[in-house]
Amino acid sequence: MTMPISQRPALLTHYQTIDTPFLYVNKPVFINNLQQLRSKIEGLGANLRPHFKTVRALEAAEYLLPTKDAPVTVSTVKEAEALASKGYTDIIYAVGIADTKLPRIAQLQAQGIHARVILDSLEQAKQLNHFCEAHQCSIAALIEIDCDGHRGGIPPEDPKLIEIAQLLETGAADFQGVLTHAGESYQCFEQQALIAAAENEVAAAALAAERIRQAGIACPIVSIGSTPTAQSYQHLDGITEVRAGVYTFFDLVMAGLNVCQLSDIAASVVTSVIGHNHDKNWIFVDAGWMALSADRGTAEQPKDCGYGLVCDTNGQVLTGLQVITVNQEHGIIQATDGNQIDLSLFPVGSRLHILPNHACATASMHAQYHVFDLNNNDYQIWNRIQGW
Amino acid sequence: MTMPISQRPALLTHYQTIDTPFLYVNKPVFINNLQQLRSKIEGLGANLRPHFKTVRALEAAEYLLPTKDAPVTVSTVKEAEALASKGYTDIIYAVGIADTKLPRIAQLQAQGIHARVILDSLEQAKQLNHFCEAHQCSIAALIEIDCDGHRGGIPPEDPKLIEIAQLLETGAADFQGVLTHAGESYQCFEQQALIAAAENEVAAAALAAERIRQAGIACPIVSIGSTPTAQSYQHLDGITEVRAGVYTFFDLVMAGLNVCQLSDIAASVVTSVIGHNHDKNWIFVDAGWMALSADRGTAEQPKDCGYGLVCDTNGQVLTGLQVITVNQEHGIIQATDGNQIDLSLFPVGSRLHILPNHACATASMHAQYHVFDLNNNDYQIWNRIQGW
Repeated sequence: MTMPISQRPALLTHYQTIDTPFLYVNKPVFINNLQQLRSKIEGLGANLRPHFKTVRALEAAEYLLPTKDAPVTVSTVKEAEALASKGYTDIIYAVGIADTKLPRIAQLQAQGIHARVILDSLEQAKQLNHFCEAHQCSIAALIEIDCDGHRGGIPPEDPKLIEIAQLLETGAADFQGVLTHAGESYQCFEQQALIAAAENEVAAAALAAERIRQAGIACPIVSIGSTPTAQSYQHLDGITEVRAGVYTFFDLVMAGLNVCQLSDIAASVVTSVIGHNHDKNWIFVDAGWMALSADRGTAEQPKDCGYGLVCDTNGQVLTGLQVITVNQEHGIIQATDGNQIDLSLFPVGSRLHILPNHACATASMHAQYHVFDLNNNDYQIWNRIQGW
Repeated sequence: MTMPISQRPALLTHYQTIDTPFLYVNKPVFINNLQQLRSKIEGLGANLRPHFKTVRALEAAEYLLPTKDAPVTVSTVKEAEALASKGYTDIIYAVGIADTKLPRIAQLQAQGIHARVILDSLEQAKQLNHFCEAHQCSIAALIEIDCDGHRGGIPPEDPKLIEIAQLLETGAADFQGVLTHAGESYQCFEQQALIAAAENEVAAAALAAERIRQAGIACPIVSIGSTPTAQSYQHLDGITEVRAGVYTFFDLVMAGLNVCQLSDIAASVVTSVIGHNHDKNWIFVDAGWMALSADRGTAEQPKDCGYGLVCDTNGQVLTGLQVITVNQEHGIIQATDGNQIDLSLFPVGSRLHILPNHACATASMHAQYHVFDLNNNDYQIWNRIQGW
């Protein structure tokens, strides 16, 4: 439980000097989220390979990654380069590789970084082999497996799986394993459905690895993960590592899936009231889509949270209030439970916190995060790694 | 008409070295957009006060603003401070003011900048007067008028209009006029509806100004504007200035309103093909919502463009193709006209351009813009002003 900011006068004074809107990180909640998942996954006998795409701040890496050789996942080469600059050495770039990005990967490898790419076609495997031959290097690659029809990858039963593995194994590239992501678990609103998605993710990756090994090819890495399934594994037989990112900050989409509580959400946008519409019973705030993002991830969930739920400055949810509309620098808060808001309780200049639909998207709108540890009377700024 | 990049070998070589995804600005199209609107508004006898929120790059300001004292609109104090640092002096911060932001406004004013704020309540007017008294300054304010029920402001007939104007006029603040924004014009899909919205915007602002003058108070600034109405005014009687921002880059939402053509869209996201799904006839690209934004502004238009339309590297629209889904760093392109895509035409590593739904939102995802002037063989980087 985090102490309320009102009981930390020095931090409160500082908090009030930061102009709104800004991204507030509740550090004890963040640290607890990290510990909970690490403990669960390591307890099931696998490694945790956190996805850096959500936090994307080097100041956060020391909490996310216990050692410099701890495994990490990235969504951009830029993140990999930033982590490498701080000495982190075990990186998977988990977006299908195009050969145009290989020079930067090769550069990382030349620095002694284990920078791995993923691919799901013979075309990419040929490009990778060709690049490695031409540049006298041996870039490590994993084959992306499609476990649920969500996006990329090939099914674990696909004959091309073995062809690609053989092409990499016999070529200049370095075949290292398989990777899958249960992206469809975001649609699982029942616990049994989540458990089934998690089991399916485990089974698909294990099957792919088994088929590759039966073809006489080593498959040292068997990587799976999504935040919803990561909370739901019953076992990790045949799996070497789990990837997840959103669990670091959590958000309303995850709360809607019951994989976290609202109190586990570590990131919120602090906003100021800038006006009212008394006829419509609206509060205007200075957090629009520039601060919140335009993400509407809860729109298709049983509980639609609009553009975010509303808390007071102590993080207490104000029941029934939502950001119902956003423009670039305006948000409109309305009661969606049929009650009227007493607008006099929200004078111009007063502050609210908005819980994000999608932490990755909301964090991406902020070059800096304001990180408060009220339990330890500590405040930090974390700088987001931007670009690609 | 812009020359195709394939006919500019030196620029093409450079273009190919920029890692995807990135924001590409077609400078001749951008310049033409600026000239067209300026010519129209000045031809109708008013000043143009461009909204800086779309481009937000100081390198663009010299094209947007012909002189250092040319009027400009901003959506954040940060933009105002950046423009002031380059000598621009006539700025309206067009988001309802909270007193917590007044110290930075006062600081600008102390530097000789005409930094104006907007408000729509007695509460804000009292706060402003109080601040000005306490800090011995006189910050200029305009009253926001609600012309169409879109968001903030008070109706031009509202008795509070005169009360607020009198409070400012007799207090320490400096009352300077009225301002409105026809935000509902984004819902006008017929030319007659747009013309009516434009006429209504003119009439509402002129009425508010007239009522204030009848109360014996000077009202030097009568400011209106939105990109759809700015293209649709038949006259500007009683109006001193027009504000607009999206017209600088234009986008698919504006094309859907027929206030621009697709060829007027000056900003696009350059992306690389990173894979295919042959069963689903999908192309995977490296532009997800991090590069495109999650804006779905065309979703409620007659022609829904998904997360963007697809062009080749010469800017030619590939008919029928759309980005149908985005994740953080993945986009999925599909044919939405019932045809099949010949995936062999889009090998891994090849490039496409994505036209944005909403230029403000897409530009906001990029710290830098890559600005090509193919007619003059010129390339620039523009740096986006970030934060608040």
